[in-house]
Amino acid sequence: MLTPNKQYQELKDTYLFNTIYRKTDEYRQSHPDKKIYLMGVGDVSRPLCEAVIQALHQAVEDQATMQNFQGYMPERGAAELREAISAYYRRYHVAISPNEIFISSGACDDLGDILELFAKDNTVLVLEPAYPEYVDTNILAGRKVVHLNSGEENGFLPAPPADITADIIYICSPNNPTGAAFDREKLQAWVDYANAQGAVILFDAAYEVFISDPSVPHSIYEIEGADTCAIEICSLSKMAGFTGTRLGYTVVPEALIRMEMNLNTMWARNRETRTNGVSYILQKGAAAVFTPEGYAQTRQDIQVYQKNARMLMDAFDQAGIWYTGGKNSPYIWIKCPDGMGGWEFFDYLLQKIQVVGIPGEGFGACGKGYFRFSAFGDPADTEAAAGLLCKLLGKAEMAEGASQK
Amino acid sequence: MLTPNKQYQELKDTYLFNTIYRKTDEYRQSHPDKKIYLMGVGDVSRPLCEAVIQALHQAVEDQATMQNFQGYMPERGAAELREAISAYYRRYHVAISPNEIFISSGACDDLGDILELFAKDNTVLVLEPAYPEYVDTNILAGRKVVHLNSGEENGFLPAPPADITADIIYICSPNNPTGAAFDREKLQAWVDYANAQGAVILFDAAYEVFISDPSVPHSIYEIEGADTCAIEICSLSKMAGFTGTRLGYTVVPEALIRMEMNLNTMWARNRETRTNGVSYILQKGAAAVFTPEGYAQTRQDIQVYQKNARMLMDAFDQAGIWYTGGKNSPYIWIKCPDGMGGWEFFDYLLQKIQVVGIPGEGFGACGKGYFRFSAFGDPADTEAAAGLLCKLLGKAEMAEGASQK
Repeated sequence: MLTPNKQYQELKDTYLFNTIYRKTDEYRQSHPDKKIYLMGVGDVSRPLCEAVIQALHQAVEDQATMQNFQGYMPERGAAELREAISAYYRRYHVAISPNEIFISSGACDDLGDILELFAKDNTVLVLEPAYPEYVDTNILAGRKVVHLNSGEENGFLPAPPADITADIIYICSPNNPTGAAFDREKLQAWVDYANAQGAVILFDAAYEVFISDPSVPHSIYEIEGADTCAIEICSLSKMAGFTGTRLGYTVVPEALIRMEMNLNTMWARNRETRTNGVSYILQKGAAAVFTPEGYAQTRQDIQVYQKNARMLMDAFDQAGIWYTGGKNSPYIWIKCPDGMGGWEFFDYLLQKIQVVGIPGEGFGACGKGYFRFSAFGDPADTEAAAGLLCKLLGKAEMAEGASQK
Repeated sequence: MLTPNKQYQELKDTYLFNTIYRKTDEYRQSHPDKKIYLMGVGDVSRPLCEAVIQALHQAVEDQATMQNFQGYMPERGAAELREAISAYYRRYHVAISPNEIFISSGACDDLGDILELFAKDNTVLVLEPAYPEYVDTNILAGRKVVHLNSGEENGFLPAPPADITADIIYICSPNNPTGAAFDREKLQAWVDYANAQGAVILFDAAYEVFISDPSVPHSIYEIEGADTCAIEICSLSKMAGFTGTRLGYTVVPEALIRMEMNLNTMWARNRETRTNGVSYILQKGAAAVFTPEGYAQTRQDIQVYQKNARMLMDAFDQAGIWYTGGKNSPYIWIKCPDGMGGWEFFDYLLQKIQVVGIPGEGFGACGKGYFRFSAFGDPADTEAAAGLLCKLLGKAEMAEGASQK
C-alpha cells in the first residue's frame, strides 16, 4: 500500500493569496458598482519591453523553420544567456562564471527544487516575516523549521542569533514582504554566521532591481565569504515583468562545498536528471533583458513602479503611519493602525475604500498587525488608492470606537 | 554544519546522453570530413506547426500591450488549455475533468516533482529497460528501487510479478527505449495488480501519438480501474515537437486516494506552493495543438517520423535483425548482432558507418546487448542510415573474428 507524504497534513489549509482572491471576489460580486484597487499581490502590470518582445518573436520564428529549429536545450541553460548574466554580475563587481549560473523556470520553482541538494536532517532558519514557500517546502520535505522573528525594534532586519544554530538559512533582501533591505555590514554578519557553522544561505534576490541605496548590496556575492556559503536565487519576474512569461536563474558557486561534496556539481547533476531545460523561446526573450536596449527599457518600467512606491510612502508619511520598505523595494510594510490585526485591517480597507492589500499574518506569526502594499499597480490607480489611504488613515478617529490619536 | 544529500553519491557518474554526446564529438573532431547520422537521442527535428507558431506570436503580442498583458498564471494551468486537453481525452472515450489536469513545464520535470506526493518509505518498481530518470530521482529521494527485468521472451512487455510487492510502479507505454506497447489486456493486468495492493502507477504516456495498433490504449484511463491507481504524465514534446519549447501535463484523478488522503487535492496544493504557473506564451501555443488545425498539422509531422520508423524496420527485417518497437513508437530496439554489448556496438557503428544510436545498457542492466534507434531524424538521413545499417548488418561476417551466421 502506497504511503502518501503525510507532511501535507502539516500545511495550513489554504494558501494566503487564494484567501485574498476569494474575499476580494466575494466583495466584488456583492458590490458590482465599486471600483476595487488591487494594491496587494506582487504581480506586475506593465507589458514586456520592446527588446524582449522582438527577441521572443524572433525565437518563435526560429521554431517555425527547419534550419533554425531548436530542440532540447542544455539543462543548465543556453550559454549565451548564462554569459549575459555573468556580465550583469560584473556591473556590481561580482565575478560569477557562466558555469555557476543555472537557468530556471522561475525563482519559485528553484526555491523548492534546490532543497534536493540537502539531506532531510538539516535545521532550517527562516527570517520572518517571509514568503510562505520557504516554510511550506521544508514542511513537505519534513525538515525542522526554526522561525526567527523580526519587528519594528530592528527595522525587520534581524541580526544572526547567538543562541541558534542552523544549517539552511533563508534570507530575502530587499525583503518580501517588508521591503526592508540589509546593508553590507548587516549582510556580512549573516555571511560570517553561516560560514562559522557551515550553514548554507539561500539568498532570494528577486527584488534586486529596486535597490536605490548604494549601501545595499545587489548580490550576496558582494559580501566577502559569500561564495563559500550562499546560493543566490534570482528571477526576471520583477526585473523585467516576467511573472506570466517565466524565467529565473540560480547561482551555485563552485567554491560551495560541504562534507567534501561540491554543490555546484551536484546541482548540475540534478538539473541533468530532473529537467530537459528551459524553453528556447523564453531564454531568447530573457537574453534580450541583458542587452543595452533591454536594460534601458526594463529600468524605465522599474522607475514607474518606484514612483508608485513614492506615492504610497508619501501617503503613509502624511497619515503618520509607521512603515518600512518602499525605498529599495516595490513593497511597503505598514503597521496597522489602532492595534488592528492584519485580516481585520484587510476587511476594513476593503469595506471602507476598496483597497486590497496583504495581511502580515500571511508571512509568519510576527507579521501580525502589519500589512503589505505593493507598488506594481497602475500609476493612476495607485495615486487614487494612496489618496484614499491617506484620507482614511489620517483621520483622528479611524474605526468605530477607536480612541483619539 | 549542513549535511548534503548523500544520495548523490549513489548516482552513476555521467548521464547516458552526455557520454554519447562526448563520444560523438570526439569522433567528429578526429574525422571532420565524415557525415555523422544521429539516429540516437530522442529529439525531434521538424519545426513547430503553423497553428502553434501563430498562437505563440499572438501570445507574445499580448505580452506587449497593457490591455492583454498576462501576469502570474493559475498554478494548475490555464482553464482554456485544461479544457482542450479534457476534450482530447474524450477522443479516446476517456472522461477526465479539467480539474484532474495539471499543466507542467514538461513531463521530465513532473516525473520528478510528482514524487513529493509520496513518503520516502515506499518501494518503487521500475519496469526495465527504462528511462534513467525513473531510477535516478528515486535514488536522490532515498527510496528502495526494485528493477523488473524484461527481455525477448516477453517482447519487453513484462507481466506483473506474483512474488513482488511495490508501492510506486513506473510504466511507459509505448515504451522508451524499447518501443514495445502494452495492449489493453496486458495493461489491465498491471492496473489490477496495482489496485490489489494499493500501489500507484506512474504512467508515462509521452509517446501516445505514435500508436497505430487499435489494441493499444492511448491512455491508461481506457483501462477499468485506472482512475483509482494511476497518474498519467504527458508531454507535447513528441506530440507536437515541443522538446525545446517545453510543455506537458499530468493527470491526477480525483478518485485517487490513499490512506484517506486525496492525491488530486495534494497535487493542487503542491503546485500552489511550488510553482507560479507555466508561461502564458507556451500555454497559448500548446492550446493551438488541440485545435482542429493544430491536430491535423502535428499529425502530418508524426507521419513523417512514422515513415522513418518504417525505413528502419525494413532495414532490420532485411538484415535479419531481431527488434521490437517502430510500429507504435518512434523507437526501434534491436538485438546487437554477434553477441556484442551495446557500447561495443555503439563504437562499431560510429567507426564503420558513422551511425549514432543509444546502447541499451543506458536503460538498465537487462538492456545490455540491445540498442535503441530513433525515427526523429531527417527523412533523407534516415533513409541513408537505414541503407548503411542494412548493408553492414546484413553481411555474413560483421566484425573481425565473428563466426558465420
